[in-house]
Amino acid sequence: MARPTSLIATKGIELLTLGTPNGFKASIILEELKDAYGLQYTYQTIDISKNIQKEPWFIAVNPNGRIPAIVDHDNGGLNVFEGNAILGYLTRRYDTENRFSFAVDDDDYTRAESWIGWQHGGVGPMQGQANHFVRYAKEKIPYGMFRYVGETERLYGILDAQLKDRDFIVGPGRGKFSIADIALLGWARVLPAVGLTMDQWPSLAAWYARCLARPAVQRGFKIPSEPQMSPVEPLSADNLEYKKAVDAAKEKYDYKYTSP
Amino acid sequence: MARPTSLIATKGIELLTLGTPNGFKASIILEELKDAYGLQYTYQTIDISKNIQKEPWFIAVNPNGRIPAIVDHDNGGLNVFEGNAILGYLTRRYDTENRFSFAVDDDDYTRAESWIGWQHGGVGPMQGQANHFVRYAKEKIPYGMFRYVGETERLYGILDAQLKDRDFIVGPGRGKFSIADIALLGWARVLPAVGLTMDQWPSLAAWYARCLARPAVQRGFKIPSEPQMSPVEPLSADNLEYKKAVDAAKEKYDYKYTSP
Repeated sequence: MARPTSLIATKGIELLTLGTPNGFKASIILEELKDAYGLQYTYQTIDISKNIQKEPWFIAVNPNGRIPAIVDHDNGGLNVFEGNAILGYLTRRYDTENRFSFAVDDDDYTRAESWIGWQHGGVGPMQGQANHFVRYAKEKIPYGMFRYVGETERLYGILDAQLKDRDFIVGPGRGKFSIADIALLGWARVLPAVGLTMDQWPSLAAWYARCLARPAVQRGFKIPSEPQMSPVEPLSADNLEYKKAVDAAKEKYDYKYTSP
Repeated sequence: MARPTSLIATKGIELLTLGTPNGFKASIILEELKDAYGLQYTYQTIDISKNIQKEPWFIAVNPNGRIPAIVDHDNGGLNVFEGNAILGYLTRRYDTENRFSFAVDDDDYTRAESWIGWQHGGVGPMQGQANHFVRYAKEKIPYGMFRYVGETERLYGILDAQLKDRDFIVGPGRGKFSIADIALLGWARVLPAVGLTMDQWPSLAAWYARCLARPAVQRGFKIPSEPQMSPVEPLSADNLEYKKAVDAAKEKYDYKYTSP
């Protein structure tokens, strides 16, 4: 695959992404909007191991040098970065019937904003650090493992409680599938990567299966290509090894799961 | 001070908070809205060391058990949690002239959303982890120090670049003071706590001084009481000690600052 060197589209949405938990926020909402409204989009694969996201043409789209980022060629080339803003912008502009979002003056718009913020400032960064200390850090540091896996567990316990009597996170009655759910799907998917499974959170597991039944979600999870992390359950041999290391770290620091 | 046991207001906005970088997002926008529109609000101090934020009445406001959180008694008791949502909700509903925000169909609304997301998912969590490893962790772990202080530096370097030819982060021309700035002020204020100063980022320092000249910002920084962390510059003796530990950690891992 040729190394991307510039934007390639001249109309519609252009997505710069990779198959990561944050990348899937953008690809899933774009697939949903395609199914619902026929919205077309173009994407480019940004191989972050090659630092494409640090090149000037990419930095012009996202000064922070991170995927996902989008450009709306039908709106003067507006660039949008950070998952909360991508989900918000695309639905405010293109989800005209509020199928995956809420009217701006609806209190559920604000409730979705709270839960998306909770994902964006909590689940994402903390589970991301858990991945780092458990899987990627060259130095094995039990303190980092128990701290971030523990916080990840606390957070999913809260989501499980929110979903106890609901089908989806936000919306009237039992809820409506929305950007609040989409923000979380990619992260929930890779819980096994740090040795966790959804078994301990039945409402979370049912919610995830419910969302995964949607064809657009399934397709979104394959854009731009197969995901970087495989969510094998029951835990694969590798993931069982990670779980052992995490369990040892928890024991060392006398950590007990108490969420929510 | 008596331990809070329930909501205390019946009209207006009720803020549950503490003098932390995230708490100040809410108190500053509320002070600005008070100056601009006469919006009244009530606040309660939530001493997080006493786990008040884990009690059922608080969890009903914010299921995540974190400050700040608000209740709008004039809107059916709507509860709003996470800084991005608090800033968004309060301005959509009460900043009717868009003095500190942007109309929802204005592209600057989305640009503010991107920068607020950048603060919420990047600066906040990463500088928060830097505080943890440098100041609070019982175990001194150089890996954690260099990792999170380094990421904090990278992020502020990006903000400094964004502010190079601007007065404020978002808005036409040289920008308009807005919720995008407010989201960052409390975190910029405590850079010295991890041994960093704004000296290396002149545009950032000028922006901070510009924002701090606003009376509402000054008052917001004192609600609910004097801040938990003092931003002494030049670095206090304590903060110089933290800086030494961070410098040693950076050297150990051969870290070099290269942002943006």
